[in-house]
Amino acid sequence: MGRWKPDARGRLAQAALELFVERGYESTTVADIAARAGVTERTFFRHFADKREVLFGDPVEYNGVFTDAVAAAPADASPLDAAALALRAAGKWFEGRHPYARRRAAVIAAHPALQEREQVKRLHLTEAIAAALVARGTGEAAAALTAELTSVAFHQAFTRWVTADEESDLGDLAVGVLDELRALAC
Amino acid sequence: MGRWKPDARGRLAQAALELFVERGYESTTVADIAARAGVTERTFFRHFADKREVLFGDPVEYNGVFTDAVAAAPADASPLDAAALALRAAGKWFEGRHPYARRRAAVIAAHPALQEREQVKRLHLTEAIAAALVARGTGEAAAALTAELTSVAFHQAFTRWVTADEESDLGDLAVGVLDELRALAC
Repeated sequence: MGRWKPDARGRLAQAALELFVERGYESTTVADIAARAGVTERTFFRHFADKREVLFGDPVEYNGVFTDAVAAAPADASPLDAAALALRAAGKWFEGRHPYARRRAAVIAAHPALQEREQVKRLHLTEAIAAALVARGTGEAAAALTAELTSVAFHQAFTRWVTADEESDLGDLAVGVLDELRALAC
Repeated sequence: MGRWKPDARGRLAQAALELFVERGYESTTVADIAARAGVTERTFFRHFADKREVLFGDPVEYNGVFTDAVAAAPADASPLDAAALALRAAGKWFEGRHPYARRRAAVIAAHPALQEREQVKRLHLTEAIAAALVARGTGEAAAALTAELTSVAFHQAFTRWVTADEESDLGDLAVGVLDELRALAC
């Protein structure tokens, strides 16, 4: 399990996170973040529309982790089984990112504007998973509900993962939550 | 099924909705909304912090519709059965509000800033339901997941309700979605 090596976006996010913790979100400027990451403001704005966006990675890449796994699921997998494969893929993608994810979650929890943005990210992920399920033949209504269940499992597991000290496997946690949901509903 | 009689908050929301449809969200000011509702700007700001808030009712009242029903559920009701009672109560609360809810949903769908606010409203409702379940003895983890399932059922049903022409019963739709979730998960 290799350590995550950040690119320019990742370095800007790391720099922003350090500064938000040190000075607070409000008191940190885009210029501060760019300087800490060793890039120009212009580079910052090539990657992010504004300061609030810096803790939110490329949605195409992020949602793609889930939707590629759904698309690659065996043709005879049920929608929920395809969703479980997406949760495993997401767990793998987050390997090595636990320290960053923990600090990021703490900063987001402390700032309503960032919490809002996080909710929108979750909504877009849910919609992307639903679309991926429809693309493999699931009906619209079942796809929407399966995507919601996947999103619930992932975000509940993520909340447990970032509040845990030890680095447990996010994929295991998420599939475990899916089983808890089954137990509740059945 | 009586028609919903709006109070000052409701009149401001109705006025805002008309203006957002007529002129667009960006071009409408708080002064415009207050004038249309026949109140002063000061009255507007007694009820809402800013223009974005005007389509979002009192969260204590709104969340209370769900949480009061959870609290009033029979002691031997399972968490998910208590949740189903909350969905019925919410359906009842929305009776007579279908025309307003439809127009409101269309305006929200057209404005990312309002969609974000709607997601936050959903998050707070989910948290409130979880807290109500914990208060009646459900464990934290089961309460969080049951609240998420309730929220999924409600919001999926709500989406169907506001896109439907005829006034179907929102409570029936929501309990129906809960059954669909059960069928998917079991």
